[in-house]
Amino acid sequence: MPSWIDGQPMEWLSVKDRGLAYGDGLFETIAVSGGNPALLERHLARLGEGCARLLIDLDLAVVREELLAFSRELGDGVAKLIVTRGDGLRGYAPPQPGLPRRILQGSAKPAYPACNAGLGVRMFPCATRLAEQPLLAGMKHLNRLEQVLARAEWHDAEQAEGLMLDTSGRVIEGVFSNLFLVQDSVLLTPDLSRCGVAGVMRAELLAQAESQGVRCAVRDIDLEALLRADEVFLCNSLYGVWPVRALQRHVWPVGPLTRKLQVIACDLLDS
Amino acid sequence: MPSWIDGQPMEWLSVKDRGLAYGDGLFETIAVSGGNPALLERHLARLGEGCARLLIDLDLAVVREELLAFSRELGDGVAKLIVTRGDGLRGYAPPQPGLPRRILQGSAKPAYPACNAGLGVRMFPCATRLAEQPLLAGMKHLNRLEQVLARAEWHDAEQAEGLMLDTSGRVIEGVFSNLFLVQDSVLLTPDLSRCGVAGVMRAELLAQAESQGVRCAVRDIDLEALLRADEVFLCNSLYGVWPVRALQRHVWPVGPLTRKLQVIACDLLDS
Repeated sequence: MPSWIDGQPMEWLSVKDRGLAYGDGLFETIAVSGGNPALLERHLARLGEGCARLLIDLDLAVVREELLAFSRELGDGVAKLIVTRGDGLRGYAPPQPGLPRRILQGSAKPAYPACNAGLGVRMFPCATRLAEQPLLAGMKHLNRLEQVLARAEWHDAEQAEGLMLDTSGRVIEGVFSNLFLVQDSVLLTPDLSRCGVAGVMRAELLAQAESQGVRCAVRDIDLEALLRADEVFLCNSLYGVWPVRALQRHVWPVGPLTRKLQVIACDLLDS
Repeated sequence: MPSWIDGQPMEWLSVKDRGLAYGDGLFETIAVSGGNPALLERHLARLGEGCARLLIDLDLAVVREELLAFSRELGDGVAKLIVTRGDGLRGYAPPQPGLPRRILQGSAKPAYPACNAGLGVRMFPCATRLAEQPLLAGMKHLNRLEQVLARAEWHDAEQAEGLMLDTSGRVIEGVFSNLFLVQDSVLLTPDLSRCGVAGVMRAELLAQAESQGVRCAVRDIDLEALLRADEVFLCNSLYGVWPVRALQRHVWPVGPLTRKLQVIACDLLDS
């Protein structure tokens, strides 16, 4: 599987990289099919927004060209792009001028059980809560210890994802997915202005649903609202949509809007 | 300056390292004088505690031997030790069994202006707040974007450190220092059970002060309490103690307990 650093094949990184030192960077995980990166514009837009917020001076045009070339070489799989602030001396102050580093890693598409998409998944209720930090909320940055701790909570393969709440008890997301619910024909997904990762598939599904006349709302959601939802599903940019059928003893049916958006996600990832 | 990975001279790291991918690891920054690492036992103890909390299976005896050998080679300077969970495949789940990686980097002692220790420093009031996350509080882990954002807030060299509050407005620490204040002869330092880094110098100064009969308390401190303190100082394991003389227009005198603990810190770092 290919691995590039700043456009050159390379599997080794300077130990001075601030991505290692401080998690000082961002990443994108991109499905690649037939040499084409899926949802490329949304990935680039989110990356650009994250770089602006972290004051990382990245040339997105270079990233786009590299991603296209890398995807052609990869063919089918997953392209993980990491952008770091580059090398640094000791100390938190960002180097001036900055020289960000682009790291691309290829891997095979994850082999999730087909029943995740078909029958739906069980969610594990994670005890690890997400801290509320508006300055970092929404970004797919490299500070991911909360997800590491949450994912370490369960080993049972019967539970395909974990449900994460914030420290105030709001429902936020899965460990590696965004969460949607359907209530009275309205598509709802948690507000991610305090914590959480604003996924590109989440953004795309919201846009597609709205364009098809589905009423959508992004807002705070508590556990009670989740439990009384008509439909619940998870999404990300690799697997598309998984219906959620259970959280502990609570069960949900797999509903029509979930299936409709699942088809849309599937088309986006395979085309 | 030397750089070792797992005990071998090496300046390049696998791009698959989870320290890069997720900030999945911890670090220690250790003053080395005459080939001896200062406060070694406290650094090892904190590292061990962090590894236990992050479920990283590290052999501390190996780390100790490496730190001693590295310090002998370095002579005088700073030994930065990073411990990561090692290489990983894609995905947050920690690899089982884990194979943590030890990275040692040497650098020169930072050249801080002598007046920082002598006259004391001005603190910049950072707008970046620390999120409250008890699961990560106290650890010197690799998820340090809050510190990066805070340190990027000011460029004026007249302000040697930044004051960080948590999202509830409590006074917590400096960007790269712990904070103490003296009020009515009691030595006070913020409780770090929700956020912040529990520094080894902080722990050592608390222990030394208590052993000398100084009344000490670790508790929540608000901005008002900070402003009315008799003395304020910062500490870390590289520079020891800096009196704080100003925060914006507020000024504090440099007091006797600050000077007493500064001498103790100085001895610890130079011996």
